[in-house]
Amino acid sequence: MNLEELPREECLRLLQRESYVGRVGFIVEGRPMVLPVNYLAEERSLVFCTPLGTKLSHLAGGAPVAFEVDASRSLYQSGWSVVVQGTANEVVDDRELELLRRGPLKSWATPSSGHWIRITIEEISGRRIPES
Amino acid sequence: MNLEELPREECLRLLQRESYVGRVGFIVEGRPMVLPVNYLAEERSLVFCTPLGTKLSHLAGGAPVAFEVDASRSLYQSGWSVVVQGTANEVVDDRELELLRRGPLKSWATPSSGHWIRITIEEISGRRIPES
Repeated sequence: MNLEELPREECLRLLQRESYVGRVGFIVEGRPMVLPVNYLAEERSLVFCTPLGTKLSHLAGGAPVAFEVDASRSLYQSGWSVVVQGTANEVVDDRELELLRRGPLKSWATPSSGHWIRITIEEISGRRIPES
Repeated sequence: MNLEELPREECLRLLQRESYVGRVGFIVEGRPMVLPVNYLAEERSLVFCTPLGTKLSHLAGGAPVAFEVDASRSLYQSGWSVVVQGTANEVVDDRELELLRRGPLKSWATPSSGHWIRITIEEISGRRIPES
């Protein structure tokens, strides 16, 4: 199988339009953790909502994170993945929060009192396995 | 949406039978990283293959890792995820390597000279969002 590195524009398109579940990678007490979230991506950042008191609450204050989306068609055939490196911060601006709460994004099991976390897109890269 | 915590046996079943792409979470130079891999899971561990010289090579020597699999049916409906916490080590036993190379597992773009990495399953947990 040949891996094709994807240009930045294509990575952003895949992140914004071709997936709705991504996986957040972060560090909790020195150990890596990965959890899935529903998300919405814009040009420079992405947002998701997480309940209070979960492991994702560790992300509120400027934590370094990785964010991954992928798709694959069958066991050994075509697929793609995109990985973002960025920084996570809680959304605290009232006007922005109101917009987010009215928006289309629902999370994996989030009460209305959840935290909204924004990840800035500092680096983005992706790769595709072409259909053979 | 209500989250249902899954019992260990169900987590293992989902990991072993219901997914073939998982995401490895690990730490590279103090930052979290997440990459997808094709994998095979047994009762106490899972294995995947990665090309030489990639970021996943950081996993060869006893690194702490998270490993995540998930599935979701549509934007706001049912889904499940399983997360493993474990330790990654390169497989170096010749007999084991021969079995792995003969086996069904192919990786995302792996030359035959790839590393085989085994993750021990030290903790496993999962959750499901029931269909509404």
